[in-house]
Amino acid sequence: MANAFVAPPPPLKDELDIVIPTIRNLDFLEMWRPFFQPYHLIIVQDGDPSKTIKVPSGFDYELYNRNDINKILGPRSSCISFKDSACRCFGYMVSKKKYIFTIDDDCFVANDPSGKAVNALEQHIKNLLCPSTPLFFNTLYDPFREGADFVRGYPFSLREGVPTAISHGLWLNIPDYDAPTQLVKPLERNTRYVDTVLTIPKGTLFPMCGMNLAFDRDLIGPAMYFGLMGDGQPIGRYDDMWAGWCCKVICDHLGLGIKTGLPYIYHSKASNPFVNLRKEYKGIFWQEDIIPFFQSLTLPKEATSVQKCYIELSKQVKEKLSKIDPYFDKLADAMVTWIEAWDELNPQGASQANAKA
Amino acid sequence: MANAFVAPPPPLKDELDIVIPTIRNLDFLEMWRPFFQPYHLIIVQDGDPSKTIKVPSGFDYELYNRNDINKILGPRSSCISFKDSACRCFGYMVSKKKYIFTIDDDCFVANDPSGKAVNALEQHIKNLLCPSTPLFFNTLYDPFREGADFVRGYPFSLREGVPTAISHGLWLNIPDYDAPTQLVKPLERNTRYVDTVLTIPKGTLFPMCGMNLAFDRDLIGPAMYFGLMGDGQPIGRYDDMWAGWCCKVICDHLGLGIKTGLPYIYHSKASNPFVNLRKEYKGIFWQEDIIPFFQSLTLPKEATSVQKCYIELSKQVKEKLSKIDPYFDKLADAMVTWIEAWDELNPQGASQANAKA
Repeated sequence: MANAFVAPPPPLKDELDIVIPTIRNLDFLEMWRPFFQPYHLIIVQDGDPSKTIKVPSGFDYELYNRNDINKILGPRSSCISFKDSACRCFGYMVSKKKYIFTIDDDCFVANDPSGKAVNALEQHIKNLLCPSTPLFFNTLYDPFREGADFVRGYPFSLREGVPTAISHGLWLNIPDYDAPTQLVKPLERNTRYVDTVLTIPKGTLFPMCGMNLAFDRDLIGPAMYFGLMGDGQPIGRYDDMWAGWCCKVICDHLGLGIKTGLPYIYHSKASNPFVNLRKEYKGIFWQEDIIPFFQSLTLPKEATSVQKCYIELSKQVKEKLSKIDPYFDKLADAMVTWIEAWDELNPQGASQANAKA
Repeated sequence: MANAFVAPPPPLKDELDIVIPTIRNLDFLEMWRPFFQPYHLIIVQDGDPSKTIKVPSGFDYELYNRNDINKILGPRSSCISFKDSACRCFGYMVSKKKYIFTIDDDCFVANDPSGKAVNALEQHIKNLLCPSTPLFFNTLYDPFREGADFVRGYPFSLREGVPTAISHGLWLNIPDYDAPTQLVKPLERNTRYVDTVLTIPKGTLFPMCGMNLAFDRDLIGPAMYFGLMGDGQPIGRYDDMWAGWCCKVICDHLGLGIKTGLPYIYHSKASNPFVNLRKEYKGIFWQEDIIPFFQSLTLPKEATSVQKCYIELSKQVKEKLSKIDPYFDKLADAMVTWIEAWDELNPQGASQANAKA
């Protein structure tokens, strides 16, 4: 039965990296020390590489600035965004671990309704180690959680579920709103702790936020590309959205699951809505075409690995989205460059993916 | 913005009937008195019609037993189940109101985590009066709820949502499990109050439970048929499931929404798992074919009213499911009879539906 899956998750100390994009000293880690200190951190320093980022003592980390990225990737470094937190995906690429947890440096430890500090990482690990159920909706939410199960009428043949590739966590305090909503509701705070985890059903797109996100690199890593954003690009703040849409169609195609809900982090400060509006405004138009593109997209049967799916996706982006704006032509090329760079840095992963195909 | 929709719901006293199927005295209404007394009740008495059902004083109700059903529907009464709570759908048919709330007589008032009694009916009305968002998933759940909104990346063109046809409420204490799960987990109780409402995405089926359910008769009433169950039938406990699958594909086709989550009721007693197993066991096999049938079903463009969709559905049931068992042949016929009876008792509704077409 479902509860066979409910067990305290192993800490996965040697199997998980924490990826943090930043432009400042990482004082926020002090609050996370009890939870993060056992893990290895990959810090991706954005902006001026000559600036020194201070990391609290006692943390095990490697830090990459723009010079490092350029050195490691050479001409392929063009696929990694600059002056935008999209640069974090470089950390996914250089990691050698099975799991990634990525978090923004303005996210603090949340409390649950009983006042207890939420161990976000532990909940992400639980989510990733339990199957997902994208093929049929369970009204009591995650059937693998303690005290829950599949309800009457849930087909027995679907109760094994599928492997979970992504765990999308949420945010108390400052919600992840777009600039127009920020402008209209400057004082809105998310105070509702919704005690649940659920699978995003197959065929349904969702807005994936990169603030508090974990995933299985082996299952979906090469699709977790955060696109071209920030410096020199006409758009920002769509990095995680783009990755989410790409990942969702690929997960649906490959029979993988995505969970959303717990864990919460406490998001401390709202970004400037005026700056955000400038970054977002093209995306607000473009997504009206991008969403139908992803909703109607199909991947061929031969696309049996994440890499193959992603290359196929890049072709369709070039074919169908570049008429919106030449930006998508560049993006499609960058998607290919990203896969080339991924495979170069992850030769075993690449050969595994090829072996599966 | 979304919160324009957040307002205390009107009580809808003249627009909502409460439908209760029962075989016993309705003592459970005492607990619901503060919430239900303003409303009109439609009691559908199952089993022996010579038995007298006591209703606590002060409630405004009409009661129908089997003799009444036979008298009102004549030969068409064959479509209404006997000795099964599926008979409740007769109440949907004789109501003249826009909204229906149906509840089982072993469901009591739940408390929220603060200890406050949950006014289930008020929450259902809120759910029905706010739009649904089946076309894209919102990670902060119902964007129309106070303190919530659409998150970054949610396409603006989809933020109006669609009309909500069904509000599916949940259960604390005894969860709605099938017989095998009841047998394996006799002591499991649902104690988790998940403080959310969400839209079931388009294209995704769900197990709809009839224990705590509200809907808009004008939008979806004719599809809310609970099938042939109980006396003389090879199956039971799939009445609400059947209605849910039919309603979901029709809502998806007509651009209507279904919400699930709040409100909770307190489900007091588990039904006998051995009896349930006997009722369910054919369904456990059959649903393995029924689910793919509904998942792949398409309705023609010409099906522009609920009635037309339902008649088309009955044809496809006859064509594709009767090979599983002759029961589906009978069920397909009963679906047609149900629509005939509905239109006879709801001539205005029928003409409205025709006018729309």
